[in-house]
Amino acid sequence: MSKITLINGLIDAHLDPADRGLAYGDGLFETILTLNGRPLYWQMHLERLTSSCQRLGISTHGLVAELEQDIKKLKADLSEFGQTSGVLKVTVTRGQGQRGYAFDSHVTPTRIVAWSPYQRDEMKPAQGVEVRLCNTALGKNSLLAGMKHLNRLEQVLARAEWSDPRISEGLVLDVDGRLAEGTMSNLFWVEQGVLFTPTLAQCGVHGVMRTRIMELAQHARIEVKMVDCPPSVLNTADEIFLANSVIGIWPVVKLADQSYPVGPVTRQLQALVEKDEM
Amino acid sequence: MSKITLINGLIDAHLDPADRGLAYGDGLFETILTLNGRPLYWQMHLERLTSSCQRLGISTHGLVAELEQDIKKLKADLSEFGQTSGVLKVTVTRGQGQRGYAFDSHVTPTRIVAWSPYQRDEMKPAQGVEVRLCNTALGKNSLLAGMKHLNRLEQVLARAEWSDPRISEGLVLDVDGRLAEGTMSNLFWVEQGVLFTPTLAQCGVHGVMRTRIMELAQHARIEVKMVDCPPSVLNTADEIFLANSVIGIWPVVKLADQSYPVGPVTRQLQALVEKDEM
Repeated sequence: MSKITLINGLIDAHLDPADRGLAYGDGLFETILTLNGRPLYWQMHLERLTSSCQRLGISTHGLVAELEQDIKKLKADLSEFGQTSGVLKVTVTRGQGQRGYAFDSHVTPTRIVAWSPYQRDEMKPAQGVEVRLCNTALGKNSLLAGMKHLNRLEQVLARAEWSDPRISEGLVLDVDGRLAEGTMSNLFWVEQGVLFTPTLAQCGVHGVMRTRIMELAQHARIEVKMVDCPPSVLNTADEIFLANSVIGIWPVVKLADQSYPVGPVTRQLQALVEKDEM
Repeated sequence: MSKITLINGLIDAHLDPADRGLAYGDGLFETILTLNGRPLYWQMHLERLTSSCQRLGISTHGLVAELEQDIKKLKADLSEFGQTSGVLKVTVTRGQGQRGYAFDSHVTPTRIVAWSPYQRDEMKPAQGVEVRLCNTALGKNSLLAGMKHLNRLEQVLARAEWSDPRISEGLVLDVDGRLAEGTMSNLFWVEQGVLFTPTLAQCGVHGVMRTRIMELAQHARIEVKMVDCPPSVLNTADEIFLANSVIGIWPVVKLADQSYPVGPVTRQLQALVEKDEM
């Protein structure tokens, strides 16, 4: 068995097609790297998940304890989980519904926990990646901004823009032409020693790795600025990198026709993130 | 059996929790009124569904024939379908996926067809409804505007704003404060004999009933204007109504503190829609 899925704690249980996660994308997810059975940044993932549930009015009653039971079950039932690296995907939906957007506040959320083995790419963090600028833009809505919710059609459309395997990621702008993020990662750049990242006040995902990188930078006395800028600011950047919980930090060495070095701030942050993983 | 769900043509089949409809809201749906086994406006629903599939790059190969087979199966297996009124919900997702936004262009879409009996409310079309103005606004993105896709968190949040059963629907604005639609219906108003409705170029759903009402109005030589206006235009409206495929046309008789009559254009269009249903 190389992949395992628990639905509300049960192996190979079935998802009700009337689940509101399917009907409306009415839910949230977390994608978590596991090393030898340890989900990295587990507390940070739980915090983002529960605070997003609260924003959407999805019950968190007993949720954390249940998810931790699910992890125990994975450890007990799947020896590979404790022995190798993998990706844990935790999805929480509002639960089953009748037709219509209104929901009963007593509905029980659905918990889907899936794990599959995953071997990290070692080349990309070391040598850097080539990225492109996507045409697909992100709509702005502060009510949804920051959450890793299940309404991800914009990301699907942005990722569908290219198939060239040399391109590892695409940068997306908001509909006003400001830098937002990558299709599946957060964006950082460095200029004159200052670390910049988009505010994501109106769109995008507040990645757990983004939060951790900003913490690590502040501890290391690197100035961090959250800004809303057009992509032209990258023309004068000294370093660019992308990050998420699963890939870690990927230096960007090529964007459109411009090349970038893998710079010292990127290498310093990579080293600090590596320490978290020990 | 009062509700029946076919997944890819099979009764009580199970939805794979790795379906991209759940993971990303990567799909579309149609909600269709059926009278004695006849799905109303079937061709118009199929046209919107297939054109939206094309916009999202979801394969429509064989889709229409398969959906029509599903309807035949419903007729054969469920006598109630042919005898009473109901609601048919057709969901098409991109299909099963691996982790990640990228998809294989050869993936087979998932087809979910659910039917349940439904008795139309006769009072609301006759006497009109009270509505409210929602605080939840719709983000603008022309790439997604018009489609009845599965990314519907904005509608969920808007509908969650009220629980007072006297309020039948909420009007939603876009993030720039322009009138868009109802949470589950399209908005029309009449001023000096002209029928107005929002353009929905940047957000909202191009409802099948909205399209049909505009056709019927033009045949009846009622001038139709698509506009983007703040909600203050409703202060001077002579008539307001809401419409969708399931509810038909609901006159709005109260919005916030203002009352409206059920006017002659609303009654004329209701009579024309009723003819479609015969």
